[in-house]
Amino acid sequence: MPPHSVWERALPIDPDLEFAEPVRSRTQRFMQVHRPRRRGEPDDLEATDRAVEGDSRASRSLYRLRHLLIGPALRSTALAEERMGRAMALGVLSPDALSSVAYGPEAMLAILVLAGTGELRVSLPIGAVLALLMLSVGLGYRQVIRAYPHGGGSYIVASDNLGRRWGLLAAAGLIVDYILTVAVSVASGVEAVTSALPSLYSARIVIGLVVIAVLVAGNLRGVRDAGAAFAAPTYLFVAAVAVIVIAGLVKAASHGFHPASPTPHPAIEAAGVLLVLRAFASGATAMTGIEVISNSVPVFRPPEGRHARQTLSVMLALLIAMFVGVVLVAHFDGATPGGQQTLLSQITHSSVGSGVAYGFVQAATTLILLVAANSAFNGFPRLLYFMARDGYAPWLFLRLGDRLAFSNGILVLAVPAAVIFAAFDGRTGPLIPLFAVGVFLAFTLAQSGMVVHWWTHRERRWRTALATNQTGATLSAAVVLIAALTKFLQGAWVVVVLVPLIVLFSEKVHGHYERVRQALTPRAESDGRALPSCVGPSPATAAALSERPVEEQDIPAEVQSFAVVPVAVLDLAALHALAYAVSLARPVLAVHVSPTEEEAERFRHYWQAWGDRLPLELVVSPYRATVAPLANYIAALHEQRPELTLALVVPELVVARRWHRLLHNRIGARLRAALVGYEGIVMTTVPFHLPP
Amino acid sequence: MPPHSVWERALPIDPDLEFAEPVRSRTQRFMQVHRPRRRGEPDDLEATDRAVEGDSRASRSLYRLRHLLIGPALRSTALAEERMGRAMALGVLSPDALSSVAYGPEAMLAILVLAGTGELRVSLPIGAVLALLMLSVGLGYRQVIRAYPHGGGSYIVASDNLGRRWGLLAAAGLIVDYILTVAVSVASGVEAVTSALPSLYSARIVIGLVVIAVLVAGNLRGVRDAGAAFAAPTYLFVAAVAVIVIAGLVKAASHGFHPASPTPHPAIEAAGVLLVLRAFASGATAMTGIEVISNSVPVFRPPEGRHARQTLSVMLALLIAMFVGVVLVAHFDGATPGGQQTLLSQITHSSVGSGVAYGFVQAATTLILLVAANSAFNGFPRLLYFMARDGYAPWLFLRLGDRLAFSNGILVLAVPAAVIFAAFDGRTGPLIPLFAVGVFLAFTLAQSGMVVHWWTHRERRWRTALATNQTGATLSAAVVLIAALTKFLQGAWVVVVLVPLIVLFSEKVHGHYERVRQALTPRAESDGRALPSCVGPSPATAAALSERPVEEQDIPAEVQSFAVVPVAVLDLAALHALAYAVSLARPVLAVHVSPTEEEAERFRHYWQAWGDRLPLELVVSPYRATVAPLANYIAALHEQRPELTLALVVPELVVARRWHRLLHNRIGARLRAALVGYEGIVMTTVPFHLPP
Repeated sequence: MPPHSVWERALPIDPDLEFAEPVRSRTQRFMQVHRPRRRGEPDDLEATDRAVEGDSRASRSLYRLRHLLIGPALRSTALAEERMGRAMALGVLSPDALSSVAYGPEAMLAILVLAGTGELRVSLPIGAVLALLMLSVGLGYRQVIRAYPHGGGSYIVASDNLGRRWGLLAAAGLIVDYILTVAVSVASGVEAVTSALPSLYSARIVIGLVVIAVLVAGNLRGVRDAGAAFAAPTYLFVAAVAVIVIAGLVKAASHGFHPASPTPHPAIEAAGVLLVLRAFASGATAMTGIEVISNSVPVFRPPEGRHARQTLSVMLALLIAMFVGVVLVAHFDGATPGGQQTLLSQITHSSVGSGVAYGFVQAATTLILLVAANSAFNGFPRLLYFMARDGYAPWLFLRLGDRLAFSNGILVLAVPAAVIFAAFDGRTGPLIPLFAVGVFLAFTLAQSGMVVHWWTHRERRWRTALATNQTGATLSAAVVLIAALTKFLQGAWVVVVLVPLIVLFSEKVHGHYERVRQALTPRAESDGRALPSCVGPSPATAAALSERPVEEQDIPAEVQSFAVVPVAVLDLAALHALAYAVSLARPVLAVHVSPTEEEAERFRHYWQAWGDRLPLELVVSPYRATVAPLANYIAALHEQRPELTLALVVPELVVARRWHRLLHNRIGARLRAALVGYEGIVMTTVPFHLPP
Repeated sequence: MPPHSVWERALPIDPDLEFAEPVRSRTQRFMQVHRPRRRGEPDDLEATDRAVEGDSRASRSLYRLRHLLIGPALRSTALAEERMGRAMALGVLSPDALSSVAYGPEAMLAILVLAGTGELRVSLPIGAVLALLMLSVGLGYRQVIRAYPHGGGSYIVASDNLGRRWGLLAAAGLIVDYILTVAVSVASGVEAVTSALPSLYSARIVIGLVVIAVLVAGNLRGVRDAGAAFAAPTYLFVAAVAVIVIAGLVKAASHGFHPASPTPHPAIEAAGVLLVLRAFASGATAMTGIEVISNSVPVFRPPEGRHARQTLSVMLALLIAMFVGVVLVAHFDGATPGGQQTLLSQITHSSVGSGVAYGFVQAATTLILLVAANSAFNGFPRLLYFMARDGYAPWLFLRLGDRLAFSNGILVLAVPAAVIFAAFDGRTGPLIPLFAVGVFLAFTLAQSGMVVHWWTHRERRWRTALATNQTGATLSAAVVLIAALTKFLQGAWVVVVLVPLIVLFSEKVHGHYERVRQALTPRAESDGRALPSCVGPSPATAAALSERPVEEQDIPAEVQSFAVVPVAVLDLAALHALAYAVSLARPVLAVHVSPTEEEAERFRHYWQAWGDRLPLELVVSPYRATVAPLANYIAALHEQRPELTLALVVPELVVARRWHRLLHNRIGARLRAALVGYEGIVMTTVPFHLPP
């Protein structure tokens, strides 16, 4: 017979809700009995989806509205992720990286043009260096796939190999990066639309905010498995860029590869190393998202690692080809960034004219940028989930919503992204300087982590791998430095300030959770104070529960607690509270606070008329405050015997209509707030329901 | 031996805090033992002013700040009001009425001038009618003093004699009136300043709002007893008006009483009966405040009634003389309202020039208008106090603040007044149409109430009194009709709509309080369910408390309640809650909600490792919600045996820093909110304090 059986038999209700007397249909409807049919084990209950509904009409309407907007709740068992083939995975995982081609080259040229149109030709060597950088970092991430076949984000790789603090630094960089990805991708996507339809230019902020709202709703609904829908824009965009680049190169060939002279722009700044470095840092934004495949190895069909590496190689080839192609065509076209038209829109016009082909390219660009923004809505909540799992982010990021999406992470991403998008007037250009630092910080730390990994593990071909990651780390670190230094005043300082703050916050969160964990861990049972009566029912209690006679010595001689009942008026609510306190079978003291001596006297007479059944203490409060003197008095009682539990039993009027709250003072709630600081005070609310 | 003595002896603490073991100094400091030295009666405690302070540093700083702004708390015994002599009372009680001379005549002329300057002469007959009206209503209020020597506001007089609903109608009129008095007086006072210093005109709204804020602070501080300071402006203003009028009349006499021709204004509207009536209704605003003395009879030195009547007569004489004087001088001066200068400022200029005398008049005008606004801060909270006492206004208006002022009434008056002042751009003119209806509604109902009073009581000289009040009632009713009809579209409709809404709200409030009172009134003791165990300690409890052995049949065989403990994690917080629930000596059921079957299984193993001491029910929530299924499950348990009390014992983590709330889900609070709708569920919070 298990130790709890005496308690079990005493229960006046059936906890399984099964053999109970007929209960009201509403409640039974909420619950379904679930029988696992295991021998010897008790039954569990399972909540149906109706059990999520509240009782009030308002909460039910809210539930239905949510149901309508984001769909019905999904069971946890629906979580099993689909595996993807390589073609599908390329479409789903590369939009973040490939879409950067839509703004990376333009960001680079926008810096060079500051030194006048003459300097635009420097874009060719810079583009070449960037292509090398892509190759190097991309190959580095191939090594990550080898080492972390279960998916290794920069946070995990850096934490594992460099230590937690470096991991948090990478995570902080990624957090900033994800927020900026949403802002930049949406801005750039809207720019693709307004390039085609200039009349919408003035409405771009509203359009962008609506897009973010749609992304939020879609992700709360859980669109992760809509693979095909997300893969299509990638292929459309690749096709579109291929068309432009090929048409542009054919046209350039027809001119013997002589670059057209661009519309002259006056030089605003002097050409020089600094300008070239800034252009390089801006162009590097074309590499954002290159790490996505290495984070998502488990979504591939087996053999996951090989498929992932192959896919990464293809993506890398596409990225480099598209980036170099766009830079070349822009060069031959003499396209200059600026105005209300994107660079991509300009070269599309000059390559394929303004017809259906132009519309197709702009539509494909917009689509892939939105899908890229969407990819941040997948990555950000997952990163915060990993951080929360390790105790470095609030636990609320652990929670899977109704639809199996990390709702909290989605919302926490959307709000700052929308604010930044609106604050930067919905334009891509001014956002670029903030962008590269966070991304490349994460790249650097992940690649450095891999260097340490290979050095420690020395697996097969570790030397090559180490060299690859070493190159990637060095180049990425160079980009971080260049971007942070050359763009510090243009906005990179925000990131430089924000990233350490995020790390600091994460560590504070972790420190708190650590202390909480220690405080909450049950100590050895010999520590009597920690578990005063958890050692099981006392003999007297057990006897009372099983209704068998007790021996004399069974009576609990030791009083462990006493009850205090604040009584304002001797009405039914107060009497219910007193009755409950009395039923606790422990000493009870009633307290009444009066503004004047006369009022106190009057209350004493009522009390005596009622039969003077319990000890009553009258506190005169000549300054008319009620809650504070009451709280202080109760605290004073508690401090007399701090080792005893003080059970505060408060009558609380529950109003039927919200506006009725205006008509009653909320002494119970205020007393609770005033006394929450005392560990030994247990607060009990005895509700009394008022008529409507 | 009183019935509570067995309980008293069981108390492990000393409720008088006196013979207790040495307690910590902080707590002892808060409380003082107060011994009334009555034989046989127990001692009471008295809270010192320190007992109002909270424990936290924030609450103590807040307390000190308030102390600094509105002064230290005052004892209730400081409430005894000073009695006033007639001269002082005249000064203190008449600003509301006399200050109306500053805007009443101007409001009248502002209507007449719409028909061109030629029609301004009609002001003389209208003024004469208004003077008669003042006399009639004023004499009517003399009769109120006779009948209500303890002070009879329109609300009380109308309620007593015509019935509650008419009283509420009068009260609603007065509520609107008080709010408008503040807005109009402040607007007019600021206009007096900007007439003298036109450069301040653009800052008038800010000035007005600052004035209202100062009035609020002053009244929260409790400036009621600063009699002399409030009496002085009245005499200054009377002197100032006397100077203008006499100087103006002397000047007019020197011209043989030929009116100067006013600066011609084109006629915008046709002259006619309607215009005259509108001018009459506007001029009637000069009568606001005429009832104040009759409400405040108890502040006079005895014989209160006679002194009050004498004072009212003097005030009436002054009011009529000043009103008529200003109308006459304006007529002889050919002053026309409009522009950025008030009428009073214009005639002051023409009567006494622009020197020191002018400054004196404007200063006196400003002062009396501010004092008049202040009088609304006395009257409004007192009216709402009377209404709340009868259950027709929220009880929060009954509460006397730290400084013995009705703080809630003061704030509820200030906010709409400030909003209206700002919404009307700080100008008096557009506010006037709203003003007369509410005031004269209250006048009419008070006077009609008096007619009924005399008819019913037939005291000495009742016929004269009845006739006087009849006249007052008839004339006031005429003003209400005229004002409501002729100014309906200019703004009176707001009042016509608002007044019935206030009455309706008051009646709803009263209905609620009535139902609450009935619901809360203890029924006969035979009603066992209402007072389940309040009939005194059960034998077993009494025995346990007094530590004497019990007989077998003493064991409480009947289970009145059972405890349910939701447990998320088997940590110390949960163990404390379980321990407390066990100590209640009643059946206990632990409930755990898991998102998956595997998690549930894991929890069951922990539970068994802990010793399987209590019954445990596992609820699997495949949709991952926790609070709602828990609430529904607990409700389902409750519905099995609704006659039993379900004691819900919830472990609650109490965070040390406010931002830590972010890091913990607040299941306790959410569960409380979800289950507040069930009468039989008593909620107990077992706090567990987290480290900082």
